[in-house]
Amino acid sequence: MHENAVVLLSGGIDSSTTLAAAKRDGFTTYALTIDYNQRHKIELTAACKIAKHLEVEQHKIIFLDLRTFGGSALTSNLTVPKNRTLSDIVNPAIAWKAGILEKLTEKEILPQGIPLTYVPARNTIFLALALAWAEVLDAFSIFIGANAIDYSGYPDCRPEFIQAFQQAANLGTKRGIEGAPFQIKAPLINMTKAEIIQLGVSLGVDYSLTFSCYDPSPRGEACGACDSCLIRRRGFLEAGIPDPTLYRDGEA
Amino acid sequence: MHENAVVLLSGGIDSSTTLAAAKRDGFTTYALTIDYNQRHKIELTAACKIAKHLEVEQHKIIFLDLRTFGGSALTSNLTVPKNRTLSDIVNPAIAWKAGILEKLTEKEILPQGIPLTYVPARNTIFLALALAWAEVLDAFSIFIGANAIDYSGYPDCRPEFIQAFQQAANLGTKRGIEGAPFQIKAPLINMTKAEIIQLGVSLGVDYSLTFSCYDPSPRGEACGACDSCLIRRRGFLEAGIPDPTLYRDGEA
Repeated sequence: MHENAVVLLSGGIDSSTTLAAAKRDGFTTYALTIDYNQRHKIELTAACKIAKHLEVEQHKIIFLDLRTFGGSALTSNLTVPKNRTLSDIVNPAIAWKAGILEKLTEKEILPQGIPLTYVPARNTIFLALALAWAEVLDAFSIFIGANAIDYSGYPDCRPEFIQAFQQAANLGTKRGIEGAPFQIKAPLINMTKAEIIQLGVSLGVDYSLTFSCYDPSPRGEACGACDSCLIRRRGFLEAGIPDPTLYRDGEA
Repeated sequence: MHENAVVLLSGGIDSSTTLAAAKRDGFTTYALTIDYNQRHKIELTAACKIAKHLEVEQHKIIFLDLRTFGGSALTSNLTVPKNRTLSDIVNPAIAWKAGILEKLTEKEILPQGIPLTYVPARNTIFLALALAWAEVLDAFSIFIGANAIDYSGYPDCRPEFIQAFQQAANLGTKRGIEGAPFQIKAPLINMTKAEIIQLGVSLGVDYSLTFSCYDPSPRGEACGACDSCLIRRRGFLEAGIPDPTLYRDGEA
């Protein structure tokens, strides 16, 4: 008999690869997507496509309006930042075409500190919701695509947070205190984007269905210049795998 | 200058008293109510009345449909349990009139183990939402009316869970890792219901505005016989304070 697992699925590269990894490990997967009224709603469509593509047992989308609180470029009218290290020098999309970006390290590309796209307590909220469903499903494992490398600025993507949440989960649930503890699994936490993409490709993930951009055009094209696009572009480049994304600047 | 605090407010005795305690301690209070599509929606009305009565700075109600997951008598079609210790002997409402219930201890009244009204991961989810708002508000304190005495069966009302959640909160937020930690405050955690009611009365809480019943009539009368009603009735009795609640059985 297969064991159930809840997998948080946003529709981006990391959560899609995490879902594929959960399937590889033999789990019957229940995908949970949170429509938090994010600006980039198109990722919900991507999540549906991926859930179907990777044949999950069930896919739930739950609505929770985090714009009620705001506090992030993704849930308020703050401007989604485009690459700041380079923005004073050149347009990042131009820099990309000119082959400048690909020579920089991730540290040089990414903003220092915690990005404006940080959403207060997002992973705490998402994991809490996954925990609720996992308890009802009798699933011991909750998968999250948290990654401490690419966005080391996000505090809720670090192993120490994941560990602390697991501890709280096991003290705050019926299942936890009855001695059948939950495990929060973040299999990508120490992988680079390139390694993640290579893993996903080896597991059959069709990345053309995924979506990463924080600031897509109304027609759904990726901007190519936000932090998330830049990390994606560099990831495919480093992985030596063609990037299937259509960027607004017309480059693959 | 006053310090901000987020207070989780359900509209029952405990959260209303907690709100009054936060005000007593000098906090500017931001009340957060979660409409989780619970059966007893009338508690949302009570929360609004209490927020007004206790003059909070702001009251937000956020919708999150926990029926999506189910798994509880409060979020599914499971029957809300009426007092089980006595149910084989007498109707609890009759027992109440006959003065039987008031002679029993809380342990005898309450079901053993975790009640069917346990909602998977509810306080984890509620605290996560409060954490998000607190971070945006620059509030260091989050108040929750968790109580380990009356409902010791709820795992997420125990001090060890509150402590573990605080730890996770401070590892998973920008504020936490920047060295200005959050505190999760549960001032009622070790008080009996009678002590809570006495405290609230001393702080001017009008308990006629609060609502506890898990299974109200369509007209909004409390059933008088669910665990929550029984705890409320006994609490007022022990506190020596008249119970302002209108129960369906016509008793105060």
